[in-house]
Amino acid sequence: MTRTIVASATREIIIGFDQPFCVIGERINPTGRKKLAAEMMEGNFETVKKDALEQAACGATMLDVNAGVTAVNPNETEPALLVQTLQIVQDLVDLPLSIDSSVSGAIEAALKVAKGRPLVNSVTGEEEKLEAILPLVKKYNVPVVAISNDETGISMDPDVRFAVAKKIVERCADYGIPAHDVVVDPLVMPIGALGDAGRQVFALLRRLREELKVNTTCGLSNISFGLPHRHGINAGFIPMVIGAGMTSAIMNPVRPQEMEAVRAANVLNGTDRDCTTWIKTYKDYKPAAAGAAAPAPVAAGEGAASGGRRRGGREARMARG
Amino acid sequence: MTRTIVASATREIIIGFDQPFCVIGERINPTGRKKLAAEMMEGNFETVKKDALEQAACGATMLDVNAGVTAVNPNETEPALLVQTLQIVQDLVDLPLSIDSSVSGAIEAALKVAKGRPLVNSVTGEEEKLEAILPLVKKYNVPVVAISNDETGISMDPDVRFAVAKKIVERCADYGIPAHDVVVDPLVMPIGALGDAGRQVFALLRRLREELKVNTTCGLSNISFGLPHRHGINAGFIPMVIGAGMTSAIMNPVRPQEMEAVRAANVLNGTDRDCTTWIKTYKDYKPAAAGAAAPAPVAAGEGAASGGRRRGGREARMARG
Repeated sequence: MTRTIVASATREIIIGFDQPFCVIGERINPTGRKKLAAEMMEGNFETVKKDALEQAACGATMLDVNAGVTAVNPNETEPALLVQTLQIVQDLVDLPLSIDSSVSGAIEAALKVAKGRPLVNSVTGEEEKLEAILPLVKKYNVPVVAISNDETGISMDPDVRFAVAKKIVERCADYGIPAHDVVVDPLVMPIGALGDAGRQVFALLRRLREELKVNTTCGLSNISFGLPHRHGINAGFIPMVIGAGMTSAIMNPVRPQEMEAVRAANVLNGTDRDCTTWIKTYKDYKPAAAGAAAPAPVAAGEGAASGGRRRGGREARMARG
Repeated sequence: MTRTIVASATREIIIGFDQPFCVIGERINPTGRKKLAAEMMEGNFETVKKDALEQAACGATMLDVNAGVTAVNPNETEPALLVQTLQIVQDLVDLPLSIDSSVSGAIEAALKVAKGRPLVNSVTGEEEKLEAILPLVKKYNVPVVAISNDETGISMDPDVRFAVAKKIVERCADYGIPAHDVVVDPLVMPIGALGDAGRQVFALLRRLREELKVNTTCGLSNISFGLPHRHGINAGFIPMVIGAGMTSAIMNPVRPQEMEAVRAANVLNGTDRDCTTWIKTYKDYKPAAAGAAAPAPVAAGEGAASGGRRRGGREARMARG
């Protein structure tokens, strides 16, 4: 059974086919958030802190941390900013973190100070990337997100995307990185532009699970780009990718409709044992008060109930179930 | 490609793997609705008419019609009541109908007066049922729902449920009824009582599609029986069963959250071409005004856009897509 272990200083999480879906909170990312970028460049981390606490309260399993503010020379400026952001977040919440950067030096700097076992986000099939990132992944013994594009870009042919993923997994093996520490992102296209985008991903996820036996992730909201009422498309996509075998996603945990879809899919996929998290979250749900989807509950304990137990407790529960 | 054709007097619908999900409106059914049962026994069909119009407006693809009021001798009373109900509904809306009764005489009486090509709901694997219903299905050349239980009841073993479905399909073949006119209901158990209920159904749906090549249906809301916020579970279940290959469900189309899940899954499954129905339904969606799921739109034309086109139009669109 494929299990990717990530951890904060105090909490260990397993990403796996038999685990609740791993929600990687995407909010701490200045890309496309000009105000946040300006704040971070000024050394103001109030929004970062707010986003960390809010995503944890809404039930995120782990948090992505990105400090990619637009800069003249990110190779010089991003390492220090990413380290600072990471340290603030890990001192504030006890969720495992994903170190998200396109700057290899920033990833290494963050790995040096990260507590627990963070996820590196990401490597691609590009030769330069493989040679820069995989030695770090091996040296620090951490898992890595593998995005299935290479020097030729993102292929529209899912068979090519599968082949790129396979190549990365094989290159990881050459470096001594096991497949269970590679979390493949098969790349999700906008369904509004490519009508086959959904079926492509579902088929890819099944192959990645059955043939490469790897965990998987994606930037979830890409699927709904350009369409009205994107949350409705996202909320339909989540149960479908979970049903097809996806085990994590980089997404916004503050959105109640999406998180409700995650929780429902966990129930239906048999990973919310005895419907414990569902019943705890929705036992007092009043449809009239909140529209058709529940508000974001302040469920401080949800991380624990939906994937954050220490392995002892989790194994004990599985032996029973 | 498996295609089950149903029709009203004026409109033909195809149930199939490449078609939008077929929503069979469940509301016209006095079972568990004492007030409706009392009205129907008094010859008052105002609620029936209201339910027919409302379900059609909310986007039902077809309507189930059941007149099973509790009676001392349903074999005597139900045929006339079902005929009356069916005639009222088919005179009011132009959606194909499902003739729903456990009384064979009522099914035959309704078949005699039904316009177009109704669906017979249902036969089981019980010998007595097979011998009573299949000759009618053959005589009137209509499709039939095949529920996968038999004299021994409902098996908890999905392999046994598959075997019962296979037996019914084979018995249908003996009567000259093709597999594409058999719509199998694999039986959905409440997930709150049986944690494996979801995964069982997903696996069964794949086998029914790949091995028996039949269309499928279920009583959708069974899955959430006993849980809080049932609509959230139902709305997560719909994309998962559609992803696993289910092509129709008997459900409540008046629920906006469930219908939104159907529309999203159609987009993601590639059967809402160019996202036409999604965009039409949600282009002016205001999340703040309606909570996290959209209100039921009065989309009189949706039946046509989401599965109700004449075959000419549909085939033309497919050739393009």
